[in-house]
Amino acid sequence: MGYSPTLEALIEKFRSLPGIGSKSAVRLAFFMLNSDENYVQEFANCLIDAKRKTRTCKICQSLSDADICAICADETRDRSLVCIVENAKDITTFEKVKEYNGVYHVLHGAMSPMDGVGPDDIRVRELIARINGVNLAGTPEGEEIAKTKVTEIILATSSNVEGDATAMYIAQLVKPFGVAASRLAYGLPVGGELEYADSVTLFKALEGRREM
Amino acid sequence: MGYSPTLEALIEKFRSLPGIGSKSAVRLAFFMLNSDENYVQEFANCLIDAKRKTRTCKICQSLSDADICAICADETRDRSLVCIVENAKDITTFEKVKEYNGVYHVLHGAMSPMDGVGPDDIRVRELIARINGVNLAGTPEGEEIAKTKVTEIILATSSNVEGDATAMYIAQLVKPFGVAASRLAYGLPVGGELEYADSVTLFKALEGRREM
Repeated sequence: MGYSPTLEALIEKFRSLPGIGSKSAVRLAFFMLNSDENYVQEFANCLIDAKRKTRTCKICQSLSDADICAICADETRDRSLVCIVENAKDITTFEKVKEYNGVYHVLHGAMSPMDGVGPDDIRVRELIARINGVNLAGTPEGEEIAKTKVTEIILATSSNVEGDATAMYIAQLVKPFGVAASRLAYGLPVGGELEYADSVTLFKALEGRREM
Repeated sequence: MGYSPTLEALIEKFRSLPGIGSKSAVRLAFFMLNSDENYVQEFANCLIDAKRKTRTCKICQSLSDADICAICADETRDRSLVCIVENAKDITTFEKVKEYNGVYHVLHGAMSPMDGVGPDDIRVRELIARINGVNLAGTPEGEEIAKTKVTEIILATSSNVEGDATAMYIAQLVKPFGVAASRLAYGLPVGGELEYADSVTLFKALEGRREM
């Protein structure tokens, strides 16, 4: 529609991104044209770099530039405590809570029998291997990490049918290894008003009420 | 915050785009990581291509891959009628109105004495050259285009102080050349209800009322 073919191609590419509509795509493409060439070149390099260099950490399965991610490699972390999340994104949310000093395990999804996603389709096997003290990285550093026995896991999968089922399944699975498994508490959000709480959350809050 | 450096760099780049917040930036970066490498490579190429190949059309000053844009090169267009817009984006809006068959001239801004933007800072000189029959492209094709005398211009700059002043200035400027100058009509949007019309628009609608 009046744009040159290369500009049209760029707009089309922006439009293919999630949450970007036609108008935003045009705005972003024009923003690029109005930026200096170095910026655009850097942007392109960042894209390719991130895609090429990012792989999964051999230990926790999170995204990493190296075979072992920064968190798994950090010796000051409590390697006996593993927080189990569905996605690599969730780690950032936990890292904002400065109090957590354990490590993570990323499942890359949740079990969903309805969609044919079983335990073998998410990274459960790797978790069990970690609990069994297997050196997943195959390096001396991996050996060092594998030395610390996992004694507790926190199941932080989503609070929906799939997340709950996955948490339940993993909790059962690790029991024979003498690993304590807990689930995150559900209840009213701090600072939230009762008036705005949905009934499912309220039910969970009642169920999990604690003596004062 | 728990992301690898290359991933963090990509998130930061997305965050630098207009209208993209922290959460969208993370979502877009993850979308890229989950896309296949060809897609990401293509995206990067589109960015660089659009930036490198796009220049301004030597005739109408719009964005183009070539010295003369597709609209200026189109022989079926009425080259005697020039619609004057502030930005290259505006052309797309006009092109959606299938009835318009004239050509365009992009000013790349509007005059704004308050910000020190005068007629020499926007592409007024090129417009006057066009009206004077100058071969702006310096090629035989440009010669062919310059042959058709511009007889009418439509001022489609924004309906704000800067746009109005720019329109007024250009209208005065082209008068000695015997070029008819008109301004787009302002009034109630078609399908809009009177109830929702702002008073400035309503005033313009009253002012521009037409006999039935």
